[in-house]
Amino acid sequence: MALVHHPTLDRRGRVVTTAVTTLDVHDLARLARTYGLDGVTVVTPLAEQRALVGRLLAHWISGKGAELNPCRREALRTVRLAATLEEAAGQAADRWGERPVRVGTSARSGPGRPRVGFGEARARLARERRPALLVLGTGWGLAPEALAGLDWTLAPLGGADGYNHLSVRSAASILVDRLFGEG
Amino acid sequence: MALVHHPTLDRRGRVVTTAVTTLDVHDLARLARTYGLDGVTVVTPLAEQRALVGRLLAHWISGKGAELNPCRREALRTVRLAATLEEAAGQAADRWGERPVRVGTSARSGPGRPRVGFGEARARLARERRPALLVLGTGWGLAPEALAGLDWTLAPLGGADGYNHLSVRSAASILVDRLFGEG
Repeated sequence: MALVHHPTLDRRGRVVTTAVTTLDVHDLARLARTYGLDGVTVVTPLAEQRALVGRLLAHWISGKGAELNPCRREALRTVRLAATLEEAAGQAADRWGERPVRVGTSARSGPGRPRVGFGEARARLARERRPALLVLGTGWGLAPEALAGLDWTLAPLGGADGYNHLSVRSAASILVDRLFGEG
Repeated sequence: MALVHHPTLDRRGRVVTTAVTTLDVHDLARLARTYGLDGVTVVTPLAEQRALVGRLLAHWISGKGAELNPCRREALRTVRLAATLEEAAGQAADRWGERPVRVGTSARSGPGRPRVGFGEARARLARERRPALLVLGTGWGLAPEALAGLDWTLAPLGGADGYNHLSVRSAASILVDRLFGEG
């Protein structure tokens, strides 16, 4: 998973860099570890924010948190840092020896953005045995330039009556369960 | 959904009352609204904690938050408060005119706790058109006395290799999507 803080949108639709929410890092790391995924890369161009996450990781991996909660340590060991989504994808390609397919979802529909159903995405990932990078936007979601870099845009989640405002923590959980859960 | 803060377990297995995490309330309210559920009842015996949630709701429903973020207002209007799980179930029965089936899950297996599969639970809820109360434990999960009050205990989530430490935010999201998602 890549947890992207730039380029993302704010509530007025402007392209911004969102602040890292530490609980996102915890939740996504626990999700990654529970479902046996490779991990979570926190993507932000702000060096100070990457340093903040670095301190969080140090606390839980080798500091006091590690003794207090070994399960949390095991989860947070899967977390990496990158300045851009491009860098995160490059790191993944280096680890896996193959360019990952970039998969994301968006609550907003858009022209020229064909959607891949979850069932089809799941079947294709399993059949082709391709590594996938799940791209998750924070704030009001990925900016158009980030959406344009996705290989697959999945169907929007939930929203029977058009209301669709899940937290990135909820969206990531549902996405991972639909693509990789035992279901 | 009922978000239960007592009786729950701490990491040593002791029965405790956990503190309310405000982000849980936000995430579950957004999840309830997105999936068209009746809402979220925050269950805690601590009057001060219920007052804290009450202030949070006032801010987002009629205070400054309501202007800033109307979507959040719409979600948080689904939130209710109760001192005990019994009270939450009673409130639900009053609203629906029928006792809800209490559905929960536990990462821990236990003797005499038969599991209902997600597919079966989904089919039964749809066929019988019964109201369901999803019971979600905070901390290290529901205490045995709360688990004993469930009508159905669902299969544990994730955990291919036995690691299963999802946040309550992730677990609730996956549970709701599996039971009520379009999937």
